[in-house]
Amino acid sequence: MTEEKTLDDLFYDTLRDIYYAEKQLVKALPKMAKAATDPELKKGFEKHLGETEGHVERLERIFEIIDKPARAKTCDAILGILEEGKDVMSEYKNTIALDAGLISSGQAAEHYEMARYGTLRTWAQQLGLTEAAKLLEQTLNEEKAADKALTACAENTDNAKAA
Amino acid sequence: MTEEKTLDDLFYDTLRDIYYAEKQLVKALPKMAKAATDPELKKGFEKHLGETEGHVERLERIFEIIDKPARAKTCDAILGILEEGKDVMSEYKNTIALDAGLISSGQAAEHYEMARYGTLRTWAQQLGLTEAAKLLEQTLNEEKAADKALTACAENTDNAKAA
Repeated sequence: MTEEKTLDDLFYDTLRDIYYAEKQLVKALPKMAKAATDPELKKGFEKHLGETEGHVERLERIFEIIDKPARAKTCDAILGILEEGKDVMSEYKNTIALDAGLISSGQAAEHYEMARYGTLRTWAQQLGLTEAAKLLEQTLNEEKAADKALTACAENTDNAKAA
Repeated sequence: MTEEKTLDDLFYDTLRDIYYAEKQLVKALPKMAKAATDPELKKGFEKHLGETEGHVERLERIFEIIDKPARAKTCDAILGILEEGKDVMSEYKNTIALDAGLISSGQAAEHYEMARYGTLRTWAQQLGLTEAAKLLEQTLNEEKAADKALTACAENTDNAKAA
């Protein structure tokens, strides 16, 4: 019971953390898509919802690989990020700056995930979990691409019209 | 009083958010440096503390530029990220996985800042705030460099010893 914790434990804890975060995002993304006024942005959130559902499945596969229960662990970070997103959605509702605010919230969530998946991928490699490392890398690349797509939305002139 | 909110408001709100986050990090980084066992990691957190103090000053300069009070606004996201960091520090205290956990927490904070500064820099450009955009870009580059340094720490063999 008092065995020292190792990187295996940290890997599992962090997997549970991002599993919780992904499930929260599955709930939040349809609301963000619904709120967005720019059709490109709306489509982007919808596309990323599909990817996010795939990320949940990949995580469940990794729980199987390490033979541990797929049990989410409350992630205060994503709750904070989504709370701020909700504030923006209500404070900027019906304003020309709403899309810019949605993009910003989306990017905060993407960056949280990029940080976690980068760390998890490195740990999986160090733990010799080759298949898990590959799955984590795939998700990491999709998060990076989603972040880039949001940057493109932020830079396009339609969303800058608020300026 | 019922004037529609614009990108100027969103820029100011987000500036206040990251100002709060930076001030929280000024308090958290010395604790992370103290907890780290790898001397390189310790030095990295100490170096980034100095930079973070500079980021606070840059933000204060930007508040001056836009002629608005430098008033922090509670940032739930950074509170959540730091709360998770505290949990790791206490749960992994005196274990070989502590440094890996500290790196992970540091990278979550860096990524949050990268998201916010990226957004703020783009908005500053769209608002024609050239000097502010330059200052935000400088900070963004320092956050990216700090994140890269943490990745290097995570990948080095000493920190992988936990595996």
